[in-house]
Parts: sequence; C-alpha cells; structure tokens
Amino acid sequence: MEKTELKDDKNKEVEEEQVVNPWEVSAKDGGKIDYDKLIDKFGCQRLDESLIQRVQRLTNRAPHVFLRRGVFFAHRDFNDILDSYEKGEKFYLYTGRGPSSEALHLGHLIPFMFTKYLQDAFKVPLVIQLTDDEKCMWKNLSVEESQRLARENAKDIIACGFDISKTFIFSDFDYVGGAFYKNMVRVAKCVTYNKVVGIFGFTGEDHIGKVSFPPVQAVPSFPSSFPHIFGNENIRCLIPCAIDQDPYFRMTRDVAPRIGYHKPALIESSFFPALQALAFRLWRQGEAKGHRLFPARRGDFKKACHDAPPLLLRFRDCCSFVETSSSRIAIAIAAPSQV
Amino acid sequence: MEKTELKDDKNKEVEEEQVVNPWEVSAKDGGKIDYDKLIDKFGCQRLDESLIQRVQRLTNRAPHVFLRRGVFFAHRDFNDILDSYEKGEKFYLYTGRGPSSEALHLGHLIPFMFTKYLQDAFKVPLVIQLTDDEKCMWKNLSVEESQRLARENAKDIIACGFDISKTFIFSDFDYVGGAFYKNMVRVAKCVTYNKVVGIFGFTGEDHIGKVSFPPVQAVPSFPSSFPHIFGNENIRCLIPCAIDQDPYFRMTRDVAPRIGYHKPALIESSFFPALQALAFRLWRQGEAKGHRLFPARRGDFKKACHDAPPLLLRFRDCCSFVETSSSRIAIAIAAPSQV
Repeated sequence: MEKTELKDDKNKEVEEEQVVNPWEVSAKDGGKIDYDKLIDKFGCQRLDESLIQRVQRLTNRAPHVFLRRGVFFAHRDFNDILDSYEKGEKFYLYTGRGPSSEALHLGHLIPFMFTKYLQDAFKVPLVIQLTDDEKCMWKNLSVEESQRLARENAKDIIACGFDISKTFIFSDFDYVGGAFYKNMVRVAKCVTYNKVVGIFGFTGEDHIGKVSFPPVQAVPSFPSSFPHIFGNENIRCLIPCAIDQDPYFRMTRDVAPRIGYHKPALIESSFFPALQALAFRLWRQGEAKGHRLFPARRGDFKKACHDAPPLLLRFRDCCSFVETSSSRIAIAIAAPSQV
Repeated sequence: MEKTELKDDKNKEVEEEQVVNPWEVSAKDGGKIDYDKLIDKFGCQRLDESLIQRVQRLTNRAPHVFLRRGVFFAHRDFNDILDSYEKGEKFYLYTGRGPSSEALHLGHLIPFMFTKYLQDAFKVPLVIQLTDDEKCMWKNLSVEESQRLARENAKDIIACGFDISKTFIFSDFDYVGGAFYKNMVRVAKCVTYNKVVGIFGFTGEDHIGKVSFPPVQAVPSFPSSFPHIFGNENIRCLIPCAIDQDPYFRMTRDVAPRIGYHKPALIESSFFPALQALAFRLWRQGEAKGHRLFPARRGDFKKACHDAPPLLLRFRDCCSFVETSSSRIAIAIAAPSQV
C-alpha cells in the first residue's frame, strides 16, 4: 500500500510487481506479499469475522486457530457451502499435494492440518490428490521418482490423522483414467489455449504437458470423478488451499456450470513465511548477544518472533518450538486446543 | 505434377495447395491427391516392388491385394520390421479408429482389412485404439455419445475376424490411466506447444484438449503402455494406417528414442475415393441411357469404373458390387484370394 506513490513510474512498478501463481511466489522488493491486492486481483472474497462466527455456530466448536489468526484469509463461495450445510446438504473436501521433495515442510502442512479440522468439524468426505504427474512435468523428475515422492508424501499426510473411513488419497499416475479422464476431457473442451495463456502465462516453448495439466487439477472438484465414493450424487466441493492455487480453480469455476456441475468453493490461506529467514533472524540475534543459538530454546524463538512482521506474528501463535538437527529445522505445532 | 507451371504464381499455388492432416483431406483444385508430393512433404518412403516381394518371401503367401495394387503405397522403417522379423524378433501391430459415426464405411475398413492380413501373415499381437476421447473433442460429441459410437464401431471391427487370442481393442475413455497415462506424460514433456502448432496447425482459439491429444495417439506405439500384454518387453511396433495420420507418428518417432523406445514403423495407405462421387457417376450414366440405375448391377459398376481415375481403378479391382438400400451404399469386397 505504501508503494502507491510509485504509480507514476509505470515501468518501475511493473518491474517490482508481486508474482503469485502456482509455480512462483515473489513479493515486491522481495518484501511482504500484499494480500489485499491479491484478493482484488484474483477476485476472491475476504474471510471476515462474521463468517468465522458462523462456522463456530454451525460446528459447535472453536474455529481453528488458522481461522482465528487469519492464516486462512480469503474464500470463494464459502458462505454457499455453509448455507447448504445448514440445510442438511452434503459437501466434500478436496485438497492436494505436488510431491517435489521427500518430506513435507511446515508450509505444506498448513492446508492438511486445516483440512483435518474441517473434516472433523463438518464430518465430511475428503479426497487428496497427489499430483505426481504435475511434478514430473514441472520439476523434470522421472515418472518413477515422482511416484516415489508421492508415496513418501502420503505417509506425512496420513500422519495428520484424517478419518480413514472418509478419506481417499490418490496419485494421478495411478488414478487418472475412467470417470476421472472423462471429466478431464469435458473440461479441456471448454478451455482454449489463449485462455490458459491468460491464466497461467504459458509460452510456445512450454511443453504440452503443462498446457494439458490444468484439467487434471480441476476435475477432483466434481464428485463424478469419484464414482466409487459419490455414485451419481452431484454434491458441492470445498477446497482448502494456499491462495497461489487460485488460478486453477478460477478456471474450474468458469467451466463447472457449462458441464453441469456446481462451482467448487474455496477457502484460501496466506503463505507460510520462509523458515530460513526466521532461522537467520534467530542466529543473528543470538550472535549479537554472544551466545550459541542452536539448539534454540523456546524462549529464543518467542523472543525472536516478538518483533517479527505481522504474518510471522500470526504464525508464532500457532507454533511453539524450533529445533535443529544438522541442517534441518523442525517446529512443533501447538494443537488448536492449546492456542 | 502437371501444375508445376503455376509455381510462378505463388499466391495461387498456396491457395490451391492440397491439405492432408488427421482432420482434413482436400486436393488441389478439388481433384486428385498428389501422393508423390505427400511422400516428399511428409518425408516417408515409397513402398516399392522389392519390399512387397520380400513380404511374400518372408510370409510364404501372396501379398495382400492392397499391397499389390498400391493402396498401401508408403512406409517408414517397414524394412527394419522385416529385418527384425527375419531374425526371429517379435513385433506388434497398432491401428485405430476415431468413432465419429455409427458404422464404419469402406474407407474406414481399409486399414482393418489390411491389419487382419498382417496379423495372419506374421502371426503377431495387435492393439486397436478407439479414440472416443478425440472424437468427443473434435466433433463436439458428448462423452456418452462418443463411447456409444466406439462400442458400435468395435462390432464392425470385430467382424473383420482378428485372432481374438492376439487382439486387444480398447476405448481411450476406459483404458487411459496407469501405465498408459504415464507414457502420455513422458511424451508430453518432450513436445512443446510451438512443435504441435508446427505439426498440426493449432491456433490459440483451439481448446487445450486438442493440444493435449497427440500423446494419447502416440503412446500405443510403446509396448509398456500395455503391461498386461507385453510385460517389460521393448518390442517394435508397426502401424498400418491411412497417410493422413502420419503427423501423429512423425511426432511419436521424434520422441521415442528420447524416452527409451523404438521408433514405431508405419505402413501407409492412400485415401479411399468418396463413394458419393462413384454413385453419382453411376446415376448419371444410367440416366443418360434412360434406365433406372438402382439397384445397380455388377456390370453397371464395372462399366462405371472403367474410365475412372487410376486410384478408383485400383479400388475397382478390390471391390465387386454396389447395392443400395434407402440412402445407403454397400460394396461387397472381394476376398484377397479372389482378386
């Protein structure tokens, strides 16, 4: 917001524009992401206090700390999901993970921890898509390596404690086909190449795997992609995700009514701040005081976070401890009830 | 060939250029397709007499009438297939059908009749792809209608009499997924959008389903797409098809060695002349003589074909009778042994 005076210098502004898409997140001047601007640009809605109170009323439990502290801060049609829930109608949850490394880091866990809460609170089915095909194509991993990472990531996801009687985790390489592939084709027919260029910024030198992937991420939003779970029910879908995934679902919401489905609703989180920056801050502060920082003590962490920017402060309240083991940093997360 | 004098008038030539691609076949001046030019343009090889004699020697039987009469007139690496067959190595056949109507017409039957001969002569496995997904996307059919047509077309294909112990017929909507989808992704990663624009002439207004389809038609060329048939064998593939499908397999042959497979070999046919034109010729001749043409007699057909252009003459020797029933025209095909 404080950069509005730069508006006259058009080129400079463009140069410094923040970039948020499914493959890149970078802030203006390397600083903070302007989330208000993102809401305006993407055209989603701010998740306000009255909506959070409505969640509390409907679920008879305290809203998740990620809601109370504004980590999930934006949505699309979340109120519609609550309306239909109030009327006794079913909905389901869909979230996912692109397996690009062996283990999930804390940022990756945010949507899963929140989805676990949503599943518990609303007692609804959940589908979790492992986009091993996407990572094979974007990260130039082999098919086999992508599948291995998907399997490793699934272990971390399972450890979040989802209701196993209501949860379906699938790898694209295994599950795409049949009803799922039919929906991919239905979506693909509704989206021109120019359209995906507008949404995702592809160029002619991008391979056609990238161009054809958006329908793969779109179709878990439609219950008919999972006939073994939903049969012929045309129920609503709610997608908890980080806001960088919004472009996929803007496309999906555009297509949905044209092929006879509800638009999926979204509930969107901000980005987890890079832990490297936090660790560096801890290290500098420790160094300044002339004592060894690592292993960090709870007090060090709390203190280091004290003057952190607002987003870090919000995360500080959800986390409680920093440990190191060789180059790894682990943060213990406080259970929602403890915060 | 007789049009070379037009070369000076560049614009006119471009305007009148013959167009042959998987979705459109139109000749210069609405006349004959110049197959020599097509061989030059596509870069495939002419199927010559010595190759036909080699087939006869290797299979111990008369080559199919479609070989002897030059209906199959071009190839890519067919000699390599024969080399490896001679060494006792295995290969398999792959052909297919895009189900755009309820019944196969005679032109559609050409590759299947020829493939049946190849299967009998070389005693090899065969996979037949029904591209119901392609027709759903190109012809704007619903998923359900495309599948229905695929099922109807499968009946006509089965009636050709393939060896059921060696033949696998599959619909893309049913079979895509698993090993097949993995190969689709492997191929897609090797092909840029600019590349498919160069090969297929897509524009920005074409939907992304078209852009993403070429890998679907490419991957039956690789035995690992059918693990239940070929296990881990990396055997060669021979594709009998009409020459308009060549662009798909030029792309496939370009990609194959990059992902560890043999380039598929091709054996390519000319196009079946439109029967409407033949029927019209019969009707006009009948009318001129003042007698009812239909039902046509064997003699009428033979006579009508007598002064037909060379390609029709070649087909005349493979067909034997014209009948009509309401608006339909059926032609009885002489068994290869009868010709």
